[in-house]
Amino acid sequence: MNRSMILYVVGHVVMLEGVMLLLPCLVSLIYQESEGIDYLVMAVICMLLGAIIVKHKPKVNVFYLKEGCIATALSWIALSIFGALPMCISGDIPSFTDALFETISGFTTTGASILNDVEALSRTTLFWRSFTHWIGGMGVLVFLLAVLPLSGGSNINLMKAESPGPSVGKLVPKIKYTARILYVIYIVLTAIEIILLIAGKMPVFHAFCTGFGTAGTGGFGTKNDSFASFSPYLQWVVTIFMILFGVNFNAYYLILFGNIKKALKMDEVRTYFLIIVAAIAVLVLNLIHTMDGFWTVLRHASFQVASIITTTGFSSVDFDLWNQTCRTILVILMFIGACAGSTGGGIKVSRFIIVVKSVIKELNSYLHPKSIKKIKMDGKPVEHEVVRAVNVYFITFIILFTTSVLLISFEGKDMTSNFTAVAATINNIGPGLELVGPTKNFNVYGTFSKYVLMFDMLAGRLELFPLLLLFYPPAWKELLAVRRRK
Amino acid sequence: MNRSMILYVVGHVVMLEGVMLLLPCLVSLIYQESEGIDYLVMAVICMLLGAIIVKHKPKVNVFYLKEGCIATALSWIALSIFGALPMCISGDIPSFTDALFETISGFTTTGASILNDVEALSRTTLFWRSFTHWIGGMGVLVFLLAVLPLSGGSNINLMKAESPGPSVGKLVPKIKYTARILYVIYIVLTAIEIILLIAGKMPVFHAFCTGFGTAGTGGFGTKNDSFASFSPYLQWVVTIFMILFGVNFNAYYLILFGNIKKALKMDEVRTYFLIIVAAIAVLVLNLIHTMDGFWTVLRHASFQVASIITTTGFSSVDFDLWNQTCRTILVILMFIGACAGSTGGGIKVSRFIIVVKSVIKELNSYLHPKSIKKIKMDGKPVEHEVVRAVNVYFITFIILFTTSVLLISFEGKDMTSNFTAVAATINNIGPGLELVGPTKNFNVYGTFSKYVLMFDMLAGRLELFPLLLLFYPPAWKELLAVRRRK
Repeated sequence: MNRSMILYVVGHVVMLEGVMLLLPCLVSLIYQESEGIDYLVMAVICMLLGAIIVKHKPKVNVFYLKEGCIATALSWIALSIFGALPMCISGDIPSFTDALFETISGFTTTGASILNDVEALSRTTLFWRSFTHWIGGMGVLVFLLAVLPLSGGSNINLMKAESPGPSVGKLVPKIKYTARILYVIYIVLTAIEIILLIAGKMPVFHAFCTGFGTAGTGGFGTKNDSFASFSPYLQWVVTIFMILFGVNFNAYYLILFGNIKKALKMDEVRTYFLIIVAAIAVLVLNLIHTMDGFWTVLRHASFQVASIITTTGFSSVDFDLWNQTCRTILVILMFIGACAGSTGGGIKVSRFIIVVKSVIKELNSYLHPKSIKKIKMDGKPVEHEVVRAVNVYFITFIILFTTSVLLISFEGKDMTSNFTAVAATINNIGPGLELVGPTKNFNVYGTFSKYVLMFDMLAGRLELFPLLLLFYPPAWKELLAVRRRK
Repeated sequence: MNRSMILYVVGHVVMLEGVMLLLPCLVSLIYQESEGIDYLVMAVICMLLGAIIVKHKPKVNVFYLKEGCIATALSWIALSIFGALPMCISGDIPSFTDALFETISGFTTTGASILNDVEALSRTTLFWRSFTHWIGGMGVLVFLLAVLPLSGGSNINLMKAESPGPSVGKLVPKIKYTARILYVIYIVLTAIEIILLIAGKMPVFHAFCTGFGTAGTGGFGTKNDSFASFSPYLQWVVTIFMILFGVNFNAYYLILFGNIKKALKMDEVRTYFLIIVAAIAVLVLNLIHTMDGFWTVLRHASFQVASIITTTGFSSVDFDLWNQTCRTILVILMFIGACAGSTGGGIKVSRFIIVVKSVIKELNSYLHPKSIKKIKMDGKPVEHEVVRAVNVYFITFIILFTTSVLLISFEGKDMTSNFTAVAATINNIGPGLELVGPTKNFNVYGTFSKYVLMFDMLAGRLELFPLLLLFYPPAWKELLAVRRRK
């Protein structure tokens, strides 16, 4: 494996994190908080360390998918460790494990917290926490690709490893411009939301944090009750933007270039909206007698459905108190997740479409054994290779999920808590049910379980294989083999 | 579709059930119970009805997989309805829904009961209940194939539809003799167990019922506390035979013909035993301080592991009271299930082997994208088609599972109960946890949920597709099309 190329990428990521850490310093300055110094020190360390690593330009810049995966996994781990340190040093979250959990939860846009009292945090840390969502949402490597002149062509492998969905489409032939277009859409949408929030009289600081949390489909709140105490207008704005950030960004690209018809015809986007509407309808029917007025019920049902299917994880009410049907629907939405090519997590709507279509195809194959019809999406046949990869993804997901539930069951917590704790982390949502419900937090779990859940968050965000590859012994062998040959 | 051939098969099944219903009549005679009359009436009706249907010999006896599936699904539904009626008419289980639930649970070797007080049943019905396990275990169509001269060659499709596992191996070139060999092994093993039970001073009636329940990996007990009040010796005998009936019957065939080495080298059988030993070890470690003495702990751990992985469902203690680790392991074992080609249910060990190997293959494909190594089992490469079918099976299973949990959640029961109720029925086990734990029963659920769970039991036993095909509208269209053409 091209070890120096991997190091080169990680170095850039660390350097970039140093730059990003300057933002909370600015916040610190505005609100005159002392925590900014810790962030500044860390920023400088990151920039220096990154600069040193990057100095060694790799001679060979051939970069295959395996290098893309390993580089991505290592980048995200480095990102999380360096991002956690200032939280830890500043004393906002004294335990390193907890700070790491919080940072991974941030970058992976999970939003699962170990904090009892969010409001006690310094504004600096609060801002950094929410900002990690924004970086993690679209992806730090996608950002790098947008600004960095990496070796031609092969950098698609970095994007493949970091971007969610069964197949990565380049919007334009050059990956660099694809990455730029994605970030422009991302920035513009975030900006519109923040403006609308401020217009609705949300304090500027909260508007920024909420904007970042929504855009990355993260879910860290700035208040202990998440979104319950904000006005209905603000809740509606967030609901709509959560749904918008769960849409495949290809749709926005098509709309931008005037191809609205094609955007509206995307199977995944249509199914996504269909699921949202259906889920809201069932929830409203189940909740209509528990709250005052249709519009209140509709607002809370929409907010929670949008929050869970997009894997954001904000809450406007304690949905853990809802009836079993509502809870079960929310748990199912956790797994479905948002569209591929969005900032959301979960298994992704397009994978479900392919999976359901393979089942129907299997049934048809009983009736017409000789038929060789391919599964279609957006009117085009889906390659066998993609179908196979989706099936394997699904199965790997289930295996990792089950193993995680077993591992955290050693602590003796009840089954629903364990099940939804893993569901909420591996799908990058945030809150689960029972002990990890929206009014609770993940500090109920011990250190070992926290590391299991951190692994799940990273695995979920990077779509399993990049992270699994890093922990796969034959991959280490290849990494070491290069060293020997040198 | 060849509708008359389908009807012909169903007719034979109904007729055969008539013959089988004579056995409880005999029990009735021995214990001088009046219920025998109802069973006798039903036996006569079944035989007459079957004889009338079978009289119309189909002109064309071409029989494809789709006909095999539909015939199998319809046979099992007919079997269940006619098997439920005498229980209902005799007044032992007055509600038809409940009687049908109990009969489907019997034939599918699930062993989930709706009865509060099993001991209040007449011996006639108790016997019939347990005997349905024995019939369902190896399969009624396999039995038919052993005795019935069906059209040459194509009857493999009946066996394919009824037999568990990713691929059906014919032991000998002629399917008829394969079926006979299977039944001979089945009868001999059952007989040995019954003799050992009687030798351990179990009353003859209970020994027969227990033998049937073990052989079919069913799990209906004859006592309210299942197996808790039987002696340690009897518990050990049942433990060992549960494990033996969960082994792929191909292994016994190989042993019978002196090829012990090959039998011991079967990947599935080795993995099956490995999982059992590992699960028992973890359970013993977790339970050692909760019971008196290592051997007691080992006995209960072994009994429960054997009972759950083979999907039998007997219980020697209330494992719902065990700690979360033990409970989680048992739930995982529920899904793994026994070997393919055994009488057990679940997803099957061989499917898990293939699935885990596809994940490893996927990881390797990242490292060596051009490698075209096939997955191997028993030293031979597994065909892509089998791997694909296993993946689709897995996915279909998850979809059906999730849908069922959602449907029964409408009743408002807690999530663990709903989850394990579906797990215990779709995997043909019997008891779940919480409300459907080993000391409880399925009568807590309402009529709608009971029908959902009945569907799951049948779907699980017939390995999904035969039953799903019956409920797939395009399949009806084909069935009707034949009628029109006539």
